[in-house]
Amino acid sequence: MNYKIDNLQYCKWSREVFQINHDAGLDAVHVTVVYHEDYDEFLKRVNEWSLHFKENSDLIFHGKSYKDIEKAKSENKTAIFFGFQNCSPIEDDIGLIEKVHEYGCRFMQLTYNNQSLLATGCYEKNDSGVTNFGKEAIREMNRVGIVIDMSHSAEKSTFDAIELSEKPIAITHANPSFWYKALRNKSTDLLKVLADSNGILGLSLYAHHLKDSTNCKLESFCEMVAKTAEIMGVKNIGIGSDLCLNQPDKVVEWMRNGTWTKTKNYGEGSKKKPGFPKQPVWFKDARGFKNLDSGLRKTGFNQEEVEGILGNNWYNFYKDI
Amino acid sequence: MNYKIDNLQYCKWSREVFQINHDAGLDAVHVTVVYHEDYDEFLKRVNEWSLHFKENSDLIFHGKSYKDIEKAKSENKTAIFFGFQNCSPIEDDIGLIEKVHEYGCRFMQLTYNNQSLLATGCYEKNDSGVTNFGKEAIREMNRVGIVIDMSHSAEKSTFDAIELSEKPIAITHANPSFWYKALRNKSTDLLKVLADSNGILGLSLYAHHLKDSTNCKLESFCEMVAKTAEIMGVKNIGIGSDLCLNQPDKVVEWMRNGTWTKTKNYGEGSKKKPGFPKQPVWFKDARGFKNLDSGLRKTGFNQEEVEGILGNNWYNFYKDI
Repeated sequence: MNYKIDNLQYCKWSREVFQINHDAGLDAVHVTVVYHEDYDEFLKRVNEWSLHFKENSDLIFHGKSYKDIEKAKSENKTAIFFGFQNCSPIEDDIGLIEKVHEYGCRFMQLTYNNQSLLATGCYEKNDSGVTNFGKEAIREMNRVGIVIDMSHSAEKSTFDAIELSEKPIAITHANPSFWYKALRNKSTDLLKVLADSNGILGLSLYAHHLKDSTNCKLESFCEMVAKTAEIMGVKNIGIGSDLCLNQPDKVVEWMRNGTWTKTKNYGEGSKKKPGFPKQPVWFKDARGFKNLDSGLRKTGFNQEEVEGILGNNWYNFYKDI
Repeated sequence: MNYKIDNLQYCKWSREVFQINHDAGLDAVHVTVVYHEDYDEFLKRVNEWSLHFKENSDLIFHGKSYKDIEKAKSENKTAIFFGFQNCSPIEDDIGLIEKVHEYGCRFMQLTYNNQSLLATGCYEKNDSGVTNFGKEAIREMNRVGIVIDMSHSAEKSTFDAIELSEKPIAITHANPSFWYKALRNKSTDLLKVLADSNGILGLSLYAHHLKDSTNCKLESFCEMVAKTAEIMGVKNIGIGSDLCLNQPDKVVEWMRNGTWTKTKNYGEGSKKKPGFPKQPVWFKDARGFKNLDSGLRKTGFNQEEVEGILGNNWYNFYKDI
């Protein structure tokens, strides 16, 4: 069986978006339910999702294990898996990890750009690695079944997480820095260690992570995938598009600034380009998976490899964990 | 005018304790109102203190500026200044700094042993210094008038805080490590930089910070004060006793473990000695200030210097800030 999975989206959720994902043939999407929300605010997001599931039950349902990906395929729907881009919902309480898992959380980033209580983000000047609380949290996430996601983390913290975690970890949405040196993209050394530990990289289609940004060519992206496969092995690569469909620019401002600063932080953007960047023409939304399919075949991947990259590798990762 | 100030206590507050502090002649006490509490829990502590102020208005009142120390002296009462041993009440929100100041917070530690969102605690393996959020928080604390307290912080973070803060900072309760190498005690290099920036050190009477612990001799303590005065200058030294009078042992367990760990952390204690240590006989409570007075005189300090150490230096620090 072949599965199509986008392992990171943070769209402005609506029936239109669920329909697009359905049209794209996605069997599963890992959605970001919170950035900076605390536990109570997370519960509100869960309620909002309950409504989405109710109102769009012909298109989506709440996914909790790899079996739900199989179910989605057989029912022609998309399974929605919950994830956090920051660890703020667990606040300073190890006991909340089990709670957020009960509400469906399956991926949690230890950090979002800045230092968290668990580890260091990629926008900090210094990286002290996984903290005392972070070590405890990783053990607990392993126990209850939440994947450790280090997409926005600093490098030493990521090496630490790979070493400390008893289960493989994920970088759900980032690209290799050999291709484009964004602060968020990952070094070749890190990608090798990630692959050696059976971890997985979700390649991002977000313009700030792409060479030539919005003007990035499909060929360039696919050549990068080929080189990444040489480094990591083709089975350790998937897609985590980082699509933020229909989100207004104030949302990206909130992602970057949360409530931690009185000045304005532009993150990956700049004063001249403060908002969401435009998507490349060949990946305006998840229907771009079709272009990835043909692009990757042209680059020399065989059909099985392409199917792995576009979903089966994520399916196997879910299954193994 | 001479003032007597104990710049750190976390007692189980009761009329008995307020009476002891009054009998000791304390004009001001900086009390810890929270360790790991979030903003809402902090408001509960404020309510509890409102009740203390109401029920013991003949002994204490809420102090907010150095003028309240003068007022306390003239009214024969003790002014109570609020402080935090962790930054948890401001959560991840820079806007809450102004709010906690409105409720009376005048000292805030950037960390309590572990990594916080602002800086690294002294119990972490690595110290990445003051974080992005920490830099913003220091600026805001400077603006609204909350003293940066680095008693439980790691060394690089403390150097950073001294450099970043436009106002002198405090280490309200710790001792020099040249005398006793506790993880919480401070290096000579750090004390020099603290003094050069007009910062102040509150010497601790908590057994885990004392050479020979509970059996520490008054003479040994006073000799340490003399050496510290040589390093820092006698005007940059005060007392921050860290008295935890009448607290049950479960409180020190909570201080150390909060809600961040599932295993038991003994902090400065050990499996064999998990609870609060006994105070030395010459400082069972604040009435021991009398013993400090005579001990320091015997060590060679003149009267003005002793009066400085026992309160006037803190008074001047409050006044300058």
